[in-house]
Amino acid sequence: MATLQLASWAVRLTYPDLTSSVVEAAVNSIYNWAGCAIGGYAQDAPRIAQATIQPFFGGPPTSSILGANGSVSEAYADAQLAAFLNGIASHVDDYDDTHLETIIHPAGPVASALLSVAEWQSPVAGHDFITAFVAGVEAECKLGLSVTPEHYNVGWHITSTVGSIGASVAVGKLIGLDTTQMQNAIGLAATQVVGMQEFFGSMTKSFHIGRAASGGMLGALLAKNNYTSSLQSLEATYGWLHVVSTRENATAYFDQLGEIWEIEKNTFKPFPCGIVLHPTIDAAMQLHKEAIQQDKDISSVKSINLQVNSQVLILTGKTNPTTGLEGKFSVNHAAAVGLLYGEATPTYFTDEAVTNATVVEFRKKVNVTVNDERFAKDQAMVTIEFSDGSTLEKHIEHAIGSLENPLTDADLKKKFLDQVSRRIGEVRAERAHTAFKGIGDMADVGQLRLLY
Amino acid sequence: MATLQLASWAVRLTYPDLTSSVVEAAVNSIYNWAGCAIGGYAQDAPRIAQATIQPFFGGPPTSSILGANGSVSEAYADAQLAAFLNGIASHVDDYDDTHLETIIHPAGPVASALLSVAEWQSPVAGHDFITAFVAGVEAECKLGLSVTPEHYNVGWHITSTVGSIGASVAVGKLIGLDTTQMQNAIGLAATQVVGMQEFFGSMTKSFHIGRAASGGMLGALLAKNNYTSSLQSLEATYGWLHVVSTRENATAYFDQLGEIWEIEKNTFKPFPCGIVLHPTIDAAMQLHKEAIQQDKDISSVKSINLQVNSQVLILTGKTNPTTGLEGKFSVNHAAAVGLLYGEATPTYFTDEAVTNATVVEFRKKVNVTVNDERFAKDQAMVTIEFSDGSTLEKHIEHAIGSLENPLTDADLKKKFLDQVSRRIGEVRAERAHTAFKGIGDMADVGQLRLLY
Repeated sequence: MATLQLASWAVRLTYPDLTSSVVEAAVNSIYNWAGCAIGGYAQDAPRIAQATIQPFFGGPPTSSILGANGSVSEAYADAQLAAFLNGIASHVDDYDDTHLETIIHPAGPVASALLSVAEWQSPVAGHDFITAFVAGVEAECKLGLSVTPEHYNVGWHITSTVGSIGASVAVGKLIGLDTTQMQNAIGLAATQVVGMQEFFGSMTKSFHIGRAASGGMLGALLAKNNYTSSLQSLEATYGWLHVVSTRENATAYFDQLGEIWEIEKNTFKPFPCGIVLHPTIDAAMQLHKEAIQQDKDISSVKSINLQVNSQVLILTGKTNPTTGLEGKFSVNHAAAVGLLYGEATPTYFTDEAVTNATVVEFRKKVNVTVNDERFAKDQAMVTIEFSDGSTLEKHIEHAIGSLENPLTDADLKKKFLDQVSRRIGEVRAERAHTAFKGIGDMADVGQLRLLY
Repeated sequence: MATLQLASWAVRLTYPDLTSSVVEAAVNSIYNWAGCAIGGYAQDAPRIAQATIQPFFGGPPTSSILGANGSVSEAYADAQLAAFLNGIASHVDDYDDTHLETIIHPAGPVASALLSVAEWQSPVAGHDFITAFVAGVEAECKLGLSVTPEHYNVGWHITSTVGSIGASVAVGKLIGLDTTQMQNAIGLAATQVVGMQEFFGSMTKSFHIGRAASGGMLGALLAKNNYTSSLQSLEATYGWLHVVSTRENATAYFDQLGEIWEIEKNTFKPFPCGIVLHPTIDAAMQLHKEAIQQDKDISSVKSINLQVNSQVLILTGKTNPTTGLEGKFSVNHAAAVGLLYGEATPTYFTDEAVTNATVVEFRKKVNVTVNDERFAKDQAMVTIEFSDGSTLEKHIEHAIGSLENPLTDADLKKKFLDQVSRRIGEVRAERAHTAFKGIGDMADVGQLRLLY
């Protein structure tokens, strides 16, 4: 209600509502601000900021908008805009990757920033690109671990809150920041805390990743130009760790940098939706297959009972989604499409799929029971009862896509080709696959876009 | 240490440090991300974001960089960049304005966004501009009140954390968002929580205001293009109020919208530094004058004893500043220049002034005692002892610039002319004063820059 209240008030406000004293106070506030802005421009901060941003202003479109086709003006942008857009696009399907211990989706903020900068700063060797990418991912995941689960539990969208820091470390590494500059870059990224869970199921969820990518990148570029920040932004009393979490243990995790690699724990999503839905979908798809094998009619299912971890309802409890994006956070929808179709590709998380009458009816049959003692986040039990009273049941120990049950190389390639060919056709999708798989050995990552 | 540790690790990391398994995991992460980005581009979110940002990309420089002189390419930028730079410049001197109950500096984020948009969207009537400005300021201050003091006490820089929301409301108002769009704009702004107190004394403090201005503006523009967010972003369990504060009381303050005007409580800084230093400076300057009247030699002062509110040491406890920006958060420096020079204009908060040998020596004489029972944030007692054992003492009940002891119209004009004439000369500064004072009655605020 508060938002509506504020929004309504602002929308309704008109000039005649303002007393002359209000107007006078407003004018004084504005002209005092203008004096400050004109006078303050003499300082270093706005000058460095301007010099840092200037390359993007009316400058050449150096960097790919990955999914855009067409001419340079349609498919390329400046590095900052490209990072922002690629960050959104790479996360909007909720199909990306997951560091399961933290529920961070690591590549989005880091790679979105890094590839844009690499194309802009071409030539950039593949080895340097990979090194920078790993630095960024380790940074964000170690930080994430150090504030898990308190930081996430309070409502932050951890992928973007740590993602801006990962992006700044990656870009900072690529552009050769020294240690002090890197500290400043981390500070500039850390002070931009973007992302809360309230926005799951809306476009703003993926905005978080775009903003983290471009914000972290901006931090690294400002630091390179000696924009000052703090050298202890993470651990300071009023710095990142203490402000955004009631718990932190950063040095313990940083001690493991280079010894335990978080990137090795990265997993890839088989289904384009909230990761906690995956065990339910896995079970539902297997039950679909069993029902066919047993000549049972799925449409005669009268009840669907799920036993899951409590995070499933907290994060994906939208019982009656109305858009594709909301469907990605609806355990009812996920179970329904898994059972009805035996698949859960992006096709089943569109506005059309979510409002399909059959699906809507089927969703109503879903009942959810929470049982944290028996079910971890990658586990679930699904029981379906048919109209004849018979039942089928499936227990998922580790969902497909989890560390214990990962996608195969072939699965991952199939996923890539499915996604990419829908945008640029099968032939170019195959070429893109070869190009991105070979990124680590390229003489110049800036040439990658030319390979497909 | 944690920051340095992380930064050092990242700086030192080289490709040979990576195992082949790390590289493989990295490549898989990158190409999985690329598939997501290419495929995800088909969604609405990246398209709307691109369409929203497109006007700024290589588009005409529509909006003033307020303090910049010279040709259009030097003194104008796109609206987003102009908002960002004006936000930084207007706050970097810490000379702006203060809503004392919350310590919000209200105009910076709101006016920086709003003027840039008004110039871009010209013609914009002065009345509409003022209305939008007031809407933004009321929004940010009411929100700030609802989370005060818990939100600030944990370390957030409240000016920017609420400022992005204020900017989105102001810009949203100006561009005519409907209520649902305004709710979405608030959501997009709310999820960008920029600014922590650790960065006080560095350039990143003013970056917060630039980022809040451009981020809030971006939120409003995205909402206009129907980028979806949340309709209850403030009050939701995992929304702004609960995530960034242990206390909130938003509806109680929103109930007062249009009845109690926060803009009327806005005060203007007489000194370009942290607001909690102002009573100390006020006292020091008065003691400087008294010493002269009594023919006492200030240089013979052997000790300077301050009794102040505890926030003074928390926020401005830098005993040995080394830059002008750090000097703005040093109670030792503030007391020293007030006593030595009887003034505390921007000249006394430069790198040169802060490292001046006389000032450095004088700062060492300062002792600070905290006494919250006797001294509110706008109060202080300064006692100086001369080498002959004589003392002078000054108690400040309400510092100059406070609501109870505000700057006069003449003071405010003098401050503006001092700031602005340093950048654009006295004649144009007078014209700029007339122009900004008359902003509310202009037929087109977009023409304001042409008036000076």
